[in-house]
Amino acid sequence: MQPMSELRTVEWVNGRVRMIDQTRLPYKFAYVSLNDYRQVARAIKEMVVRGAPAIGVAAAMGLALAANANRGKDKEQFMHELQTASEVLRRSRPTAWNLFWAIDRIVRTAQSTKGGPNEMAASVVAEAQKMAEEDIEANRKIGDYGAALIHDGDQILTHCNTGTLATVSYGTALAPVRTAIQQGKRVRVIATETRPRLQGAKLTTYELLRDHIPVTLIVDGAAGYVMKMGMVQMVIVGADRVTKKVVANKVGTYLIALAAQANEIPFYVAAPSSTFDLRNEQFEVKIEERDPQEVTHIGGKRIVPKGVHIFNPAFDLTPLKLVKGFITNKGVIAPDMLEPKMAVLDS
Amino acid sequence: MQPMSELRTVEWVNGRVRMIDQTRLPYKFAYVSLNDYRQVARAIKEMVVRGAPAIGVAAAMGLALAANANRGKDKEQFMHELQTASEVLRRSRPTAWNLFWAIDRIVRTAQSTKGGPNEMAASVVAEAQKMAEEDIEANRKIGDYGAALIHDGDQILTHCNTGTLATVSYGTALAPVRTAIQQGKRVRVIATETRPRLQGAKLTTYELLRDHIPVTLIVDGAAGYVMKMGMVQMVIVGADRVTKKVVANKVGTYLIALAAQANEIPFYVAAPSSTFDLRNEQFEVKIEERDPQEVTHIGGKRIVPKGVHIFNPAFDLTPLKLVKGFITNKGVIAPDMLEPKMAVLDS
Repeated sequence: MQPMSELRTVEWVNGRVRMIDQTRLPYKFAYVSLNDYRQVARAIKEMVVRGAPAIGVAAAMGLALAANANRGKDKEQFMHELQTASEVLRRSRPTAWNLFWAIDRIVRTAQSTKGGPNEMAASVVAEAQKMAEEDIEANRKIGDYGAALIHDGDQILTHCNTGTLATVSYGTALAPVRTAIQQGKRVRVIATETRPRLQGAKLTTYELLRDHIPVTLIVDGAAGYVMKMGMVQMVIVGADRVTKKVVANKVGTYLIALAAQANEIPFYVAAPSSTFDLRNEQFEVKIEERDPQEVTHIGGKRIVPKGVHIFNPAFDLTPLKLVKGFITNKGVIAPDMLEPKMAVLDS
Repeated sequence: MQPMSELRTVEWVNGRVRMIDQTRLPYKFAYVSLNDYRQVARAIKEMVVRGAPAIGVAAAMGLALAANANRGKDKEQFMHELQTASEVLRRSRPTAWNLFWAIDRIVRTAQSTKGGPNEMAASVVAEAQKMAEEDIEANRKIGDYGAALIHDGDQILTHCNTGTLATVSYGTALAPVRTAIQQGKRVRVIATETRPRLQGAKLTTYELLRDHIPVTLIVDGAAGYVMKMGMVQMVIVGADRVTKKVVANKVGTYLIALAAQANEIPFYVAAPSSTFDLRNEQFEVKIEERDPQEVTHIGGKRIVPKGVHIFNPAFDLTPLKLVKGFITNKGVIAPDMLEPKMAVLDS
């Protein structure tokens, strides 16, 4: 079986978008192949593909499908269709910055291409594929920069899934773990199960088991206890969006950051530059509220009495002051250096 | 349907121990009737009955069953059988102090009774029933003292189940909520689902819905976010054991306490005096590790790939400095006043 780090979560294959169907893991490893941007938007919404970097690239490839489908139109009509597809894809999920970043980049690519719809579609398709390659390259760099922070014997706590399955390949918060292990360091992972969608229990364990990386699974509530008991030397999580003031990431991240602070354990956020929304002056991050059924039902079975009110935010906000450093593809950046390094991140 | 606050979770009925079977809630409300202390020990272990005060009284009633069964023995044999039953019940669960407190009290009752096994059994049975009445009385007082801290319009976050189902009746952390509502205050509850056993999702919601108390359910990871968003005015949790240094309570409590501190929300622990283990000099609390299946399976369905290592601590430890006050049947006590008030708690 191929290691996860050699697979691609989302890939452009013969003019279609091929994705690993993450809703079927860990029970079944299967690909889906999509040929319409609306299918891509639905796949993002229903979390067939998830993870901020992965959905960014998926959206770009969704636009590539839309561009290809409109090669026969006139230029104005082509741009109109691309804008429509952009709007549909923008509405698929509201929090991950990479989604908006990717869509904007593709639209700009189309706008700046000389020639007609045929040339524009060709550059959009090429750009989407380039973004996939860049994502892997960025994650390898995150791996290099992050691995330098990891000591032999460290046990690293992570939340949600931030591996190959959250990106095109290799991962964000799991990239330093992979690279450190390749360097010969003994590294173990504590994964939180990550309710309600259980990405930690279902995806992170699957990915790490498949790549023979030692992993211990805990419920989300036990994150503080394992830190207090001295079982954790470092925390690395991913991010869906980083602004000047907060990290938006999977709900539960904020509690983990507080426990890391209380126990003097370094808390790192690993993310590529496409996750940084540093021009956001208003510090507004829309936190997605998802279907109450994610809480009331597990595996199709109701666990909660009927009639109970549910509040199901998918993300939470962690203040920058709780972050020791951002492990990015441009190096490790302290929280108070994010704004000065904005140009570096953009480059 | 009778309100939960009028029901009894564990009760001595016609020489048997009757319990609400909590493993079947919220799907089915049913009683089980036990006539042997080994059945009681199993019921505690398998969480047919759970909640520190409830398992204390259940163990006492288990010993009453053992005492009744040995009325025909000679005195030495009677005490031997009672000690054997004590040992079995002591091993049922390791963390809740009320369990050991209750067993010790019953054994002392037998030892101090004049006469033979018949008289000893009669006093043990009477003592176990008295302890049930005292539990309800203590919870009513916790309700009175705690309700005075609650303001009209407060939304109170709680963890796990600390209501009627965790006690003989009325509850510990939910007692102040019940009493405040009876006083005409508008109070709403945010309940965490409390993985892995989902006592919040299954039991707290059931109990509060049945008693028409407004409740919103969240996943454990969202506890920090709701506090940060200003949705919580107060946290009240229960306790399985309070020592001079820590509160042992359901895993996840420590994270909630940290988030309450970070957001300047008062964090209260509600518990009867039988939960306080203040003579414990060594600060050792055995934290129970439960079956990995509680994490790997939900509703009989496996959610985690085979071969993943699980760490499943049932409780965690919250330092006293994170506690604003202990709401007890003897009044509200600040953490630094616990030792001076030890005699009051014992009285």
